[in-house]
Amino acid sequence: MTKLGFIGLGIMGGPMAAHLAAAGHDVSGYDVSADATAKLEAAGGRRAAGVGEAVADAEVVITMLPNHPHVEEVVLGPGGVLESAKPGTLLIDMSTIRPETSIEVAKTALDKEIRVLDAPVSGGQAGAEQAALSIMVGGEAADFAAALPLFELVGKTVVHVGPHGAGQVVKAANQLVVGGIYGLVAEAIVLLEASGVDAGTGLDVLAGGLAGSRILELKRESMVARRFEPGFRIDLHHKDMGIALAAARQADVSLPLTGLVAQLIAAGRAMGYGSLDHSALLKVTEGLSGYTRVKE
Amino acid sequence: MTKLGFIGLGIMGGPMAAHLAAAGHDVSGYDVSADATAKLEAAGGRRAAGVGEAVADAEVVITMLPNHPHVEEVVLGPGGVLESAKPGTLLIDMSTIRPETSIEVAKTALDKEIRVLDAPVSGGQAGAEQAALSIMVGGEAADFAAALPLFELVGKTVVHVGPHGAGQVVKAANQLVVGGIYGLVAEAIVLLEASGVDAGTGLDVLAGGLAGSRILELKRESMVARRFEPGFRIDLHHKDMGIALAAARQADVSLPLTGLVAQLIAAGRAMGYGSLDHSALLKVTEGLSGYTRVKE
Amino acid sequence: MTKLGFIGLGIMGGPMAAHLAAAGHDVSGYDVSADATAKLEAAGGRRAAGVGEAVADAEVVITMLPNHPHVEEVVLGPGGVLESAKPGTLLIDMSTIRPETSIEVAKTALDKEIRVLDAPVSGGQAGAEQAALSIMVGGEAADFAAALPLFELVGKTVVHVGPHGAGQVVKAANQLVVGGIYGLVAEAIVLLEASGVDAGTGLDVLAGGLAGSRILELKRESMVARRFEPGFRIDLHHKDMGIALAAARQADVSLPLTGLVAQLIAAGRAMGYGSLDHSALLKVTEGLSGYTRVKE
Amino acid sequence: MTKLGFIGLGIMGGPMAAHLAAAGHDVSGYDVSADATAKLEAAGGRRAAGVGEAVADAEVVITMLPNHPHVEEVVLGPGGVLESAKPGTLLIDMSTIRPETSIEVAKTALDKEIRVLDAPVSGGQAGAEQAALSIMVGGEAADFAAALPLFELVGKTVVHVGPHGAGQVVKAANQLVVGGIYGLVAEAIVLLEASGVDAGTGLDVLAGGLAGSRILELKRESMVARRFEPGFRIDLHHKDMGIALAAARQADVSLPLTGLVAQLIAAGRAMGYGSLDHSALLKVTEGLSGYTRVKE
Repeated sequence: MTKLGFIGLGIMGGPMAAHLAAAGHDVSGYDVSADATAKLEAAGGRRAAGVGEAVADAEVVITMLPNHPHVEEVVLGPGGVLESAKPGTLLIDMSTIRPETSIEVAKTALDKEIRVLDAPVSGGQAGAEQAALSIMVGGEAADFAAALPLFELVGKTVVHVGPHGAGQVVKAANQLVVGGIYGLVAEAIVLLEASGVDAGTGLDVLAGGLAGSRILELKRESMVARRFEPGFRIDLHHKDMGIALAAARQADVSLPLTGLVAQLIAAGRAMGYGSLDHSALLKVTEGLSGYTRVKE
Repeated sequence: MTKLGFIGLGIMGGPMAAHLAAAGHDVSGYDVSADATAKLEAAGGRRAAGVGEAVADAEVVITMLPNHPHVEEVVLGPGGVLESAKPGTLLIDMSTIRPETSIEVAKTALDKEIRVLDAPVSGGQAGAEQAALSIMVGGEAADFAAALPLFELVGKTVVHVGPHGAGQVVKAANQLVVGGIYGLVAEAIVLLEASGVDAGTGLDVLAGGLAGSRILELKRESMVARRFEPGFRIDLHHKDMGIALAAARQADVSLPLTGLVAQLIAAGRAMGYGSLDHSALLKVTEGLSGYTRVKE
Repeated sequence: MTKLGFIGLGIMGGPMAAHLAAAGHDVSGYDVSADATAKLEAAGGRRAAGVGEAVADAEVVITMLPNHPHVEEVVLGPGGVLESAKPGTLLIDMSTIRPETSIEVAKTALDKEIRVLDAPVSGGQAGAEQAALSIMVGGEAADFAAALPLFELVGKTVVHVGPHGAGQVVKAANQLVVGGIYGLVAEAIVLLEASGVDAGTGLDVLAGGLAGSRILELKRESMVARRFEPGFRIDLHHKDMGIALAAARQADVSLPLTGLVAQLIAAGRAMGYGSLDHSALLKVTEGLSGYTRVKE
Repeated sequence: MTKLGFIGLGIMGGPMAAHLAAAGHDVSGYDVSADATAKLEAAGGRRAAGVGEAVADAEVVITMLPNHPHVEEVVLGPGGVLESAKPGTLLIDMSTIRPETSIEVAKTALDKEIRVLDAPVSGGQAGAEQAALSIMVGGEAADFAAALPLFELVGKTVVHVGPHGAGQVVKAANQLVVGGIYGLVAEAIVLLEASGVDAGTGLDVLAGGLAGSRILELKRESMVARRFEPGFRIDLHHKDMGIALAAARQADVSLPLTGLVAQLIAAGRAMGYGSLDHSALLKVTEGLSGYTRVKE
């Protein structure tokens, strides 16, 4: 049994903390929402009144927060994790944030003798609920080894990908490829349909050859049918493309396709599709080709 | 046994004609290269002195040519297929060309009572040699049915995708997705490496999740190792992106990612990598991020 | 007085031919529209029954046609200019077409001892009517010198920019820059307005500094007011972006911004704005940012 | 005479503070570099030991800092301007930063009864030295009126463009247009040269028509001659494109051309041209078209 502090009990963090409690760990959780902490209690965890309380006696602290400003506040801020946790604590930040913030957190924590892993996940709400997440971990090998038994309670694929920040970089790379493939499949669908070719038949051929992808496999039917219930929302992918561009800036590289994909996903959000599945990038591509005019 | 005329006996057409001859068909072939026709003879076919001779008695004519101007000349031009073939002949154009040319050929042929299928392939030289091509066919269902036994002698996946030109449109959609995924994977590799993350490890994670694709499966090792022997050459993909943009223009759609991918592949050719595999798009992405400066 | 054959008497060619006739030249004109030839007669020219008649006795032939297929038909086709004109004739093609067609025309004409200039114009209908066109001329210096007195009857700025095709290349470069600046100004307007800044005030500042341009000077008021009566139509700019991309392909260069601008202008056309002024590219940018949702 | 505190005495802030001192104002300046404060003393100002001292008695505080983290630290941080300045002070932040930081600063300052203007400039080092800057000001009209006499000592064009943050938005819009026009002109040059057309002649034509711009006017000769001494460095424009993208994200708009221009400028920096003039974006365009291969 490990004493765990868990900060951030939302649609991702909530089920993850519950899995850890169910496995017999002593989980003290905090969230700004009282509902969220109540759910954790129901699942066998303990409700903490604040970050300080959740963290004070913990051997391992896990944070699962929306974006880097929240991590900065909760971890680095006054009364935050670094001020409240004991030396020797292992902090696992499972939020998806900019690599540079992960690196900064690790550096700052070092002074307090707190060890840090960045461990963003993919797999979404379903993955969290089914303990089937993919987890990309950056940090020291020894800390990864120590955390692995916990990771295996919430994830299915767990990989140590490199030093501090590396988990975030791999997540960013993942999201730019996913967003880009959605954009390409959307352009293929629009080209096929506008040319009078049945998109379903056309995509079947693509799926069987070098153009094949997990996205074509899982999503081509729903995209052709224009079913866009989430899944992973465009709003979240928009956030992640911001992270990918920040990572590129940090690494001093030029990613032209990523830059354009980011703007197309931003269009999806600006056009009012932020709460649809990211496959709804198709609606942006349709808009650019005047589909509403053609189809209505 | 079918009497076949076969025009264009290059690295694709040569092995295809040989397979048809080996299956017992009477193949009369023509190519501007005497070497190419000699090879067909060695494989059991007959050498024709020109398009007219190859086509004159044929029940089915197959053309496999580099691009639309060649098709226009060989099929529509003076002394070409439409002038030389008998009414009732079935013309199967397996070249990868602009959909609008395929449609024009079909329309013009109608007046001469010649039936036409557009049937571009993917799978490259290896696919042609192993009779394992994917074939995307546009045209009338009855003509497709008539041609199917021949297609099955050279291809593994054969799909009737729609009316005249539809084969070309599906091929164009395929190529824009393939080119785009190469570009995205290239950006992922550059981001990973420049961030100090091992690209092989990172891409392993991507390959296992929603970012997964046939290209990641087959090519991530060679790309990370910078092995770019073709395969399918950048020069050919550059030609195919031109076709995709022409198809978009014809269909009156806007494909922004395709437009950018086309320019990146054009850069690959302009930078001198035209005869490398299309995965060498990575070298363009590297160039944009000053890799040669950083790494050499 | 020069004997002139003039093919293509549309909204550009019509007033140009009239200026030449008004200056005392003997202009024999042909157009597929009988209206157009009637107007030329009214302006003092002569009506020819076909290309052959217009061209037969001409010392100078001028063609002003929509795009390269028309030039190929009228100039290179059976009964066309090259078949009908006398050796020694000077052919001035003022159509805006792909440089490679201009070069091919010049090469083919050489065999018939017909000299050729490519001389596309900018300035639009107003420029044609007011004899105030800019004319970019490619070809031999001696031929340019011979044609200059004619050019000066229809244009204000006339420049010999290089060998055959060079006029088209300069026109293509002009159009990619113009289209691109419209796109940039559109993005500036959308950013300003969506940020709560008065776009007119903001653009005034831009116009006074390094961001200043002829387009900001002439069009910022109408763009901010959303007045898009043409001017130069998006449909025509769409055609011209196709030429710019063909020129890039021919020159073996990569133009990523041009590739994207071309798709945005294609979107303008696909969205139904083809007959609006090219400044209506703003409507595409607005669409991408969900303006109709925000504003209506 | 106004009592002024001036924080940030670099290549921009240094000459600006000197102009204000020369006009008879009592300028107390601070910079991390002792050299910089020494120069201010020589110019008639006073050297402050820190932010607190510079600001303590000031009626107006001016900050001229590299980017938003510096503004956050100097203005919002412990011992910063908001802690040290008296209620009633007017804070003019002339740094170029993200609009959202300007808005946050203004909001936070309100609580301390400190009024704020955001007033980024363009015109570069030369503009600062010659007191010829363009100044884009966001904030309350009354505060703008109060600050105007000071602005006029360092700038030539001074415009109140809107509420808090509006100055930054206009600056961002300016920089995206400037960066984009450089990119377009670069593509025009590469297309012209690779097509065998003299770029100087071609650009002369463009400069005289609708494609004309301040950049073509001032920079076409140096670009064609490949003279890239700064001027305004690519590194700074790279920073500014980051601000433009942040502003777009904040305003919830999609700016595809801006997204691509940002990556091309990032390429300039990544390729090692960060300290060249931003017109050296041409070197990126050349690289994409394999110019070094062709020309050297």
